[in-house]
Amino acid sequence: MNDDWSSALLTDRYELTMLQGALRSGAAHRRTVFEMFARRLPENRRYGVVAGTGRFLDALTNFRFDSATLDYLSDAAIVDDSTLQWLSEYRFSGDIWGYGEGECYFPGSPILVVEGTFAEAVLLETVALSIYNHDCAIAAAASRMATAAAGRPLIEMGSRRTHEMSAVAAARAAYLTGFASTSNLEAGRRYGIPTAGTSAHSFVLLHDSERHAFAAQLESLGSGTTLLVDTFDVERAVRSGIELAGPQLGGVRVDSGDLALLTSRLRQQLDRNDATETRIVVTGDLDEYAIQALAIAPVDGYGVGTALVTGSGSPTASLVYKLVARARGTSPDSPLEPVAKRSVGKPSKGGRKWSSRSLDDSGTATAELVHEHEPESTPLTRPLMRRLVHEGEIVGGEPLDDARKRHARSVEELPVTAQQMSRGEPAIPTHFEERVHN
Amino acid sequence: MNDDWSSALLTDRYELTMLQGALRSGAAHRRTVFEMFARRLPENRRYGVVAGTGRFLDALTNFRFDSATLDYLSDAAIVDDSTLQWLSEYRFSGDIWGYGEGECYFPGSPILVVEGTFAEAVLLETVALSIYNHDCAIAAAASRMATAAAGRPLIEMGSRRTHEMSAVAAARAAYLTGFASTSNLEAGRRYGIPTAGTSAHSFVLLHDSERHAFAAQLESLGSGTTLLVDTFDVERAVRSGIELAGPQLGGVRVDSGDLALLTSRLRQQLDRNDATETRIVVTGDLDEYAIQALAIAPVDGYGVGTALVTGSGSPTASLVYKLVARARGTSPDSPLEPVAKRSVGKPSKGGRKWSSRSLDDSGTATAELVHEHEPESTPLTRPLMRRLVHEGEIVGGEPLDDARKRHARSVEELPVTAQQMSRGEPAIPTHFEERVHN
Repeated sequence: MNDDWSSALLTDRYELTMLQGALRSGAAHRRTVFEMFARRLPENRRYGVVAGTGRFLDALTNFRFDSATLDYLSDAAIVDDSTLQWLSEYRFSGDIWGYGEGECYFPGSPILVVEGTFAEAVLLETVALSIYNHDCAIAAAASRMATAAAGRPLIEMGSRRTHEMSAVAAARAAYLTGFASTSNLEAGRRYGIPTAGTSAHSFVLLHDSERHAFAAQLESLGSGTTLLVDTFDVERAVRSGIELAGPQLGGVRVDSGDLALLTSRLRQQLDRNDATETRIVVTGDLDEYAIQALAIAPVDGYGVGTALVTGSGSPTASLVYKLVARARGTSPDSPLEPVAKRSVGKPSKGGRKWSSRSLDDSGTATAELVHEHEPESTPLTRPLMRRLVHEGEIVGGEPLDDARKRHARSVEELPVTAQQMSRGEPAIPTHFEERVHN
Repeated sequence: MNDDWSSALLTDRYELTMLQGALRSGAAHRRTVFEMFARRLPENRRYGVVAGTGRFLDALTNFRFDSATLDYLSDAAIVDDSTLQWLSEYRFSGDIWGYGEGECYFPGSPILVVEGTFAEAVLLETVALSIYNHDCAIAAAASRMATAAAGRPLIEMGSRRTHEMSAVAAARAAYLTGFASTSNLEAGRRYGIPTAGTSAHSFVLLHDSERHAFAAQLESLGSGTTLLVDTFDVERAVRSGIELAGPQLGGVRVDSGDLALLTSRLRQQLDRNDATETRIVVTGDLDEYAIQALAIAPVDGYGVGTALVTGSGSPTASLVYKLVARARGTSPDSPLEPVAKRSVGKPSKGGRKWSSRSLDDSGTATAELVHEHEPESTPLTRPLMRRLVHEGEIVGGEPLDDARKRHARSVEELPVTAQQMSRGEPAIPTHFEERVHN
């Protein structure tokens, strides 16, 4: 994939028509604050997971109206010439704060706060929501799978079940929640994520016999490889594998059948043949519940596909991007005023917000606090907003491994109810510290 | 977005390790047939919709291991040097047949058939599945929405709820099933799909009053624009809109509340003010059921977001790509032999297949026939496979509008049960014409 691209048209048309209207009325240059948050979590989730921050900062860097983009907007008569002129010089020059990538979040958490003129900030709505809604949905599902796996390695292998570029982002989101590796090579190249994979049923069927196929794989990839043993008869396949590779066979994979029963038998067969170190990897439509159900089975690794890349029942995080404050004048000194829509069933709280996680003496989270002013860090209060962009310059970039470590710490800090697979309330409540304009 | 890119790493690692193993064993050069099909439809679907063909052919054109890709594969030690050498010269030189894009499909329909050496054909598995699994899932949901809308225009506006590139593909899939337009500008630029959109709540909140905002929008976009009227009070907003624009106001949009009730009141208010031509557009978490429930409401257009881009409950089409036949020798004359995995609960039928739709005297489809040999076209038999690639050359490219027309014809041809929203069996059964190797 080429990295020299413009992300500017990954945008809903109305962002540009609003820009044109506001340029005409003059309101385009008012200072504004937009906030991204979720009104609620999916029904069976105890926490959300912030993911996509690094990708959003990349998209921001590439959010430029180059000549190809402007030509389209002109030819399709999307906006008028003065708007095109304004777009041709567009660079986001405002400030962006957000939760650190990997941080857990809750209903109302202001996970991204964009400050800039209306013109600058409104244009980022669609691409920001696309990135965060996808990546957060995948990460929330992945985090539960990591909990269910209880330390056994997870391999992300869902590329084939989702859009080819979503696949790359899904691998990234899974890795940051603790997955060990991905099948996706572009995710390996782009993000340095370890990749995994050896062979499919087609490799067995291609050869004259399963034994021929195993011999070819061992010859090519060495005895440490993982053989897929359920094309015909698992027991016979394992016998062939051990005869050919000896007890140092790296692993066997089963992709179908009653995995609890099969893996028990497999482990016994392997152990009887001194292949006590041979790993058993299971795949085949696993989700967090199936992973948890295999906790007492002799499984050494899980490959997860469909359930991961589709967010295990919640394929989008339902994040919204709302104008919460704006200046009435266009001067930089004009004070911000909170604003909010008054719609039935969709309450929004106006005003610029900050947030922190409230902790008890043992360091366990007790509440999500949403403040009208920037909170101070204390032993019982952990501020959550990081500065991502300062006057248009990206200052919050970080290696993916930092987000991975942050996620592990953030989950660790939550009360144990966060790890329950059952339906229920968010692991901690959200408190709005002072009444803000509604 | 830059079109000069390589799609070669949108691939699972095991495709390349299988390639390496098969190059070593020599089996890589055996002729093979891979088939893409769905074992079943999602529980509440009466038919599937083929989508992604055009995108797959684009990806095939860009499936080249350029130096950046090869460098990664080498640095990460994914495959050995002789495999890298082979990859550097890779061009698919085989044949591909498939259902025409937009065609309806059923369980077992061979919607894509790839013929080539194992080495050539196995490499395409991941990217082909990613594209078809995503696009078919969206198109199947979109087609039901188009049925439910019964001729009223549908606007695709789900970009913000899915990965930023999935959004572009989703707009394309929706358009081919009959959606009128999309909010997504990149889909407009890339595929020529009409775009739509005027303003959001933030535009109203930005201005000093709703009335100021409406005046700015009308000034900028003309009286034919669509005003968003539910930021505060719908009735008051409509009054302002008509006062400012006159009865020639193009449209009003409501995004929340009881849409059946609201639209009835809205229509009355508009008609009382001689705005009898002013369109009412509704948005806000609509799916096919909500659209159908509004059939008797005075609605002139639906905007659909989340439900569309998440496949309305079925975000992936569960298509698989299976080796169904291979030659035992590596000579081009070596005969193909059917192959199939024998796994519990996942029956596959080996052998190269063709298919046709069986019709009755009135031209209504009665069955999906899957054949061992190429069927002839008769008044009661419509062959379904088109040649997409001939000896490596793409011959099946076509304008998106052709797929859109094909889809309309294909749905029209199905029995009326296909249009039921309720759960049930596929609209027509699939018959395997002769017993093939199992």
